[in-house]
Amino acid sequence: MYGDRLGIAVVGMGGAVATTAIAGMELLKRGVVDTTGLPLAGVKGAGLVDYGALTFGGWDLYDDDLAKAARTHGVLTESQLQAVEPVLSKMRPWPAVSNRNFCRNVVGSSNKKMSSLRAQVEAIHQDLERFQREQQVDRLVMINCASTERPVNTALPQFATPEAFEAAIDANDPEISPAMLYAYAAISRGLPFANFTPSVAADVPALLELARRNGAPVAGKDGKTGQTLLKTVLAPALRDRALYVSGWYSTNILGNRDGEALNDPASKASKLDTKGAVLDSILGYKVQDHIVQIQYYRPRGDNKEAWDNIDVLGFLGQPMQLKVNFLCKDSILAAPLVVELARTLDLAKRRGEGGVIESLGCFFKAPMTPDGRTPEHAMPEQQRRLMKWLSAGSARPTVGNELLRG
Amino acid sequence: MYGDRLGIAVVGMGGAVATTAIAGMELLKRGVVDTTGLPLAGVKGAGLVDYGALTFGGWDLYDDDLAKAARTHGVLTESQLQAVEPVLSKMRPWPAVSNRNFCRNVVGSSNKKMSSLRAQVEAIHQDLERFQREQQVDRLVMINCASTERPVNTALPQFATPEAFEAAIDANDPEISPAMLYAYAAISRGLPFANFTPSVAADVPALLELARRNGAPVAGKDGKTGQTLLKTVLAPALRDRALYVSGWYSTNILGNRDGEALNDPASKASKLDTKGAVLDSILGYKVQDHIVQIQYYRPRGDNKEAWDNIDVLGFLGQPMQLKVNFLCKDSILAAPLVVELARTLDLAKRRGEGGVIESLGCFFKAPMTPDGRTPEHAMPEQQRRLMKWLSAGSARPTVGNELLRG
Amino acid sequence: MYGDRLGIAVVGMGGAVATTAIAGMELLKRGVVDTTGLPLAGVKGAGLVDYGALTFGGWDLYDDDLAKAARTHGVLTESQLQAVEPVLSKMRPWPAVSNRNFCRNVVGSSNKKMSSLRAQVEAIHQDLERFQREQQVDRLVMINCASTERPVNTALPQFATPEAFEAAIDANDPEISPAMLYAYAAISRGLPFANFTPSVAADVPALLELARRNGAPVAGKDGKTGQTLLKTVLAPALRDRALYVSGWYSTNILGNRDGEALNDPASKASKLDTKGAVLDSILGYKVQDHIVQIQYYRPRGDNKEAWDNIDVLGFLGQPMQLKVNFLCKDSILAAPLVVELARTLDLAKRRGEGGVIESLGCFFKAPMTPDGRTPEHAMPEQQRRLMKWLSAGSARPTVGNELLRG
Amino acid sequence: MYGDRLGIAVVGMGGAVATTAIAGMELLKRGVVDTTGLPLAGVKGAGLVDYGALTFGGWDLYDDDLAKAARTHGVLTESQLQAVEPVLSKMRPWPAVSNRNFCRNVVGSSNKKMSSLRAQVEAIHQDLERFQREQQVDRLVMINCASTERPVNTALPQFATPEAFEAAIDANDPEISPAMLYAYAAISRGLPFANFTPSVAADVPALLELARRNGAPVAGKDGKTGQTLLKTVLAPALRDRALYVSGWYSTNILGNRDGEALNDPASKASKLDTKGAVLDSILGYKVQDHIVQIQYYRPRGDNKEAWDNIDVLGFLGQPMQLKVNFLCKDSILAAPLVVELARTLDLAKRRGEGGVIESLGCFFKAPMTPDGRTPEHAMPEQQRRLMKWLSAGSARPTVGNELLRG
Repeated sequence: MYGDRLGIAVVGMGGAVATTAIAGMELLKRGVVDTTGLPLAGVKGAGLVDYGALTFGGWDLYDDDLAKAARTHGVLTESQLQAVEPVLSKMRPWPAVSNRNFCRNVVGSSNKKMSSLRAQVEAIHQDLERFQREQQVDRLVMINCASTERPVNTALPQFATPEAFEAAIDANDPEISPAMLYAYAAISRGLPFANFTPSVAADVPALLELARRNGAPVAGKDGKTGQTLLKTVLAPALRDRALYVSGWYSTNILGNRDGEALNDPASKASKLDTKGAVLDSILGYKVQDHIVQIQYYRPRGDNKEAWDNIDVLGFLGQPMQLKVNFLCKDSILAAPLVVELARTLDLAKRRGEGGVIESLGCFFKAPMTPDGRTPEHAMPEQQRRLMKWLSAGSARPTVGNELLRG
Repeated sequence: MYGDRLGIAVVGMGGAVATTAIAGMELLKRGVVDTTGLPLAGVKGAGLVDYGALTFGGWDLYDDDLAKAARTHGVLTESQLQAVEPVLSKMRPWPAVSNRNFCRNVVGSSNKKMSSLRAQVEAIHQDLERFQREQQVDRLVMINCASTERPVNTALPQFATPEAFEAAIDANDPEISPAMLYAYAAISRGLPFANFTPSVAADVPALLELARRNGAPVAGKDGKTGQTLLKTVLAPALRDRALYVSGWYSTNILGNRDGEALNDPASKASKLDTKGAVLDSILGYKVQDHIVQIQYYRPRGDNKEAWDNIDVLGFLGQPMQLKVNFLCKDSILAAPLVVELARTLDLAKRRGEGGVIESLGCFFKAPMTPDGRTPEHAMPEQQRRLMKWLSAGSARPTVGNELLRG
Repeated sequence: MYGDRLGIAVVGMGGAVATTAIAGMELLKRGVVDTTGLPLAGVKGAGLVDYGALTFGGWDLYDDDLAKAARTHGVLTESQLQAVEPVLSKMRPWPAVSNRNFCRNVVGSSNKKMSSLRAQVEAIHQDLERFQREQQVDRLVMINCASTERPVNTALPQFATPEAFEAAIDANDPEISPAMLYAYAAISRGLPFANFTPSVAADVPALLELARRNGAPVAGKDGKTGQTLLKTVLAPALRDRALYVSGWYSTNILGNRDGEALNDPASKASKLDTKGAVLDSILGYKVQDHIVQIQYYRPRGDNKEAWDNIDVLGFLGQPMQLKVNFLCKDSILAAPLVVELARTLDLAKRRGEGGVIESLGCFFKAPMTPDGRTPEHAMPEQQRRLMKWLSAGSARPTVGNELLRG
Repeated sequence: MYGDRLGIAVVGMGGAVATTAIAGMELLKRGVVDTTGLPLAGVKGAGLVDYGALTFGGWDLYDDDLAKAARTHGVLTESQLQAVEPVLSKMRPWPAVSNRNFCRNVVGSSNKKMSSLRAQVEAIHQDLERFQREQQVDRLVMINCASTERPVNTALPQFATPEAFEAAIDANDPEISPAMLYAYAAISRGLPFANFTPSVAADVPALLELARRNGAPVAGKDGKTGQTLLKTVLAPALRDRALYVSGWYSTNILGNRDGEALNDPASKASKLDTKGAVLDSILGYKVQDHIVQIQYYRPRGDNKEAWDNIDVLGFLGQPMQLKVNFLCKDSILAAPLVVELARTLDLAKRRGEGGVIESLGCFFKAPMTPDGRTPEHAMPEQQRRLMKWLSAGSARPTVGNELLRG
């Protein structure tokens, strides 16, 4: 594997997913855990950086140190927590960009005070430079793991071209969300950027064009972890057997901060949006009764539970039912994807690939495509494409992100 | 599609699967049902014969006409049954070869009286010739849908070469099961043969070699319908996400004649055998606690229910659980596979392909391979191979099975 | 059993529940079905009228004859439907009282045209008298099985006393719902009245007082059929074993007209209200996370499915989970309760009991109590009380409802 | 509550259930846990001894101290274990009576060496006397929590009368199992004895007669914890609603030492026996298809999972299904029952009640009755009887077990 040090700047660093990823990489270095759950652990020779080469930093509205944050989230076992507490307790997120208009239910106090968007972007850049300098990392990637924001109208003119977007930033346009601002901050410096949330971030024409111009690999959106993963695994099989899906009822219960954010109907709308499209796209017809429920349910904590009822018609039009109950742990499923996204985006950067990296679609509920085409949603086909992409190119032995260095 | 008439000779013609397939093709011709559930209905240009070109005949130990049999099985709805009753009531299975040593719990009275194996083979050939002549079909395939027989030791010397097998038939060897005899009858005439059951049929070296020599396409064994289908759909996804399967508990309840046959521990052994291997092969490691239960449970009738509990370890070694409850209908899932097997084997024959047709693996719990290699079990990869095979070759415009004609 | 003829006047006679009850009693008379599912079929000597003595009539906004209605609902099997079609096709509901302000999503055209409430009440009385005369029934009961109405503020002054209510009727008060009007029509004539729906009907002080004065037995509300039945069966056991319920997540999917009505948030509010209270009352503490979802899901048709996840803490505070999946048929569970309610209310009337008959609580999600006390919700205790009540009193051999006769 | 000190002598003291009970009482004394899960914690004024008055001792074939045993079983959380480790590490089971003929799969080395049964009984008595003396407890009860033994033919003549039994002991009769020997040891001294396992213990005429003569309260057998508890909760409700149970399929997976013991078909037979009878007894008819599967499945550890499918016929003979998935913890459910059994048996003794205490039936899968009558299995009715029994009598202020003292 490629040995240089890679810095991962995480938006929402104190959240359950990011703290689990960070703690997990520490536990892996110490040999406390193995690579179970890391999808690309078995990939050799593709030029991915070692897990040991990863260093984390990032922003959060809550300024708790990561040991405290991890204890709150309750994802790590007691003994895992104790093993990494000394390291995590020294890590503290940087103040974050926030905007109550986009995410109502998450209110932290550690936010950047400057009022102009341009000043916020500059502050993000300073954070990145300081991170790179202090941690002596060779290259950077940015991953958005923050709470879900309300939907954004991506068709607005200010999101149409890089120039319009720049002007909108200078005009403090209220339609620019924090997630978009972070995406802009990364892409404008040519840094790889992945959006692990359902929020709109880099997925507007302005930022995609900028990513192409600057050679910034981007990918997103909304990590494909539990229920949607299963949906994109089962639906292709139903299609292949010509079983007609007459209805699919999905219910989710989850009790972490993410779930609390989703109690805001506006944020929930973003989530349901990324969850909804996958079925029709895989099956090739519109499922008339596809219903997705998400419910904040405190007893689950960071655990997550999905119950799916799938109604199918088989031969002779006869009905059958498939019910799937997934008792999973959101952060345990999500954290390794964040890690692999960082490693693959870094690989893309070193290979000289910019703009949307479509081959990373398997990591997302709503994968991005370079040209707005409907993405491939079927998990087996996505996986095949990822493996092909990994085995295809050869990475440049670049040593750093010139733009940041310069 | 290829328009010539294809005769399908079914071993176990009065069983739930075969009667459903036969009734289904009639209902399709009449426009009562559409092609839902027929996996290859959407395939164009590959040279498969039309569904309308299929004609059925076959053997059974119960000589009920198919209308009566269908009513007993209770798979068709009342109105479906009424629509095809006039046709089905005129179809009656031919007396079958039986052997109490291989299948204890299914006892019918309509069996071939001749005591020598050679005479039984000749009687099968006469049945086929009469079927072809009376129904004016151009070509034939044979599919075994009979009840599960007890395991056979495939390493016995009499199963090693065609010559040894011929000698064993002449010697009335008690180790030759009915399923093997039917397979031999088909293959010795160069006819395509598929084994839809867990019984040993063509899968001994002697018969495979004979199939190659005679250009007889063969495929099997044990139709992949419910629980195992899902297993081979889910396991690849768990592997791709590096989730470690620490245990998989599968329980099945079913109440039809098939289930009754499985109440005989010897028959059940065959079934469990074909169900067991798929997981380890897909995952690449031995699942320590993979348990499969099959239970005859009368209230299910021809419906079948599977409950699977899957224990996985994710990132940081943390446990999660996936539970799948499949309320399905055995014959509704199986019958279309029987139809598609007939169509694809016929295509293989016309293409000049003989021996094991590995690309048909997606239809089976325990696919056969030409050289005894471990077969591919992952459903998505099997499907990809089938699609590739269908789009690959071009079929000869042969008009019939010369051997039978001659 | 008591042999006189009892007329059951059903509000919502063309709905799935009522048509199933009516068809079921016909099928029972003909010996096509047995008494399975009828809770009091085994009760002897309590003075209940025979099932054979029941005659049905009623109102509906849809004027389809009951054969057509039954076919639409799809509850009866084809052969059951055929057996009773001749009888059902001659039964047609009377025009109903409707009010779009109380139930938005159910729009039928067969409604009473008179605009004053008083005239509507009189029309109801004429319907009842005609019913009694034409069908030659000795006594009457009225059961409300109509679609759910939006909540009503029961604390309004016009609902406080019989006198205020009478005045409100004369003033065409817009707060008087159809369900209340039907209840008033029954009670004002001393007829037994049961409210099988979540709507407010007799459960206001004015009507309860009137029921006492007039000796009209009343009971309600909202039939306890599927999920709530199970809840009131399981919760007492959890309490008895001192298992602490830390959360209970209930989701329901249903696809019939009832479900469609619940797509109106106002109607749904009434439903969730009757479902919510049972747990805390049985357990003796407030379940912090008790969530009930009801979702209209077309593929279910009249079938109904409930999935409950129950989180409990056991000894040492350790968490356990119980998951219950009930695949049931709404009308199949509800119809026999309607029948038994009619029989028991008639018994109460003959025994001279008026006002709220608390002992019938086992039939309802939200049982009524005479004095507004919290009702008993635990199913086993309710059942015990019903059995005790049945074995207690002796019915007067009254021959009819004097008020209607007079 | 009654304040004297009660000694509980547990057969199988090092098992998961007993160690959990012992640790739990310690944690309760220290205020680390509350009384959640202890069914009788809320009962006041009945004369039960305080939880704080309980002291434990007992036998086991494994001589690990209880801290080590508890760590092996993995029932306590890490912090619970740490809180009681100092106390548990000082507790070590006494050598046990064992017999490979009755329980094959559990092999420990700490067994009593004396070969005659009489000598073993005397050794048990000495253990009890030493326990009472050293722990300064006022009274004793004995509870059998050992692994399940194979079935015993209770109709043998040596089990018919106390005299025959005494003679059989003196003759070292090979049909006398360890569980019977412990029961005899307790009962012959007038001590209360409960059998929490499916083994035959006090339930032979000889020992029941002896219990009556000696005033020894006895109860059993097989603690009603998970699946059977639910069965006896649900079945009465199905009966009350006249839903006909056409089939009940129960599957259990469990991974602790108890499960391992059940891998021995002989032990499993005992278990299935106690599980089987409850349904028919409650429902009043024979459920034709009642199937109970128990499967040792290592990934569960001490957790236990039950999946039940219940097929019912409702009104009009229409089928419905209920599926229950219970993810529970065997010892967490069982341990508090052991504690409550000890407290209630002690109360019975002080009240002067001897022989079978039928009112304790709610604690058992197969409750004992004094005269061999079919026991009440319905949980709600059992609970009502227990509550009535508790509120009925008044306990003698006896200070100790005179027989042992004397």
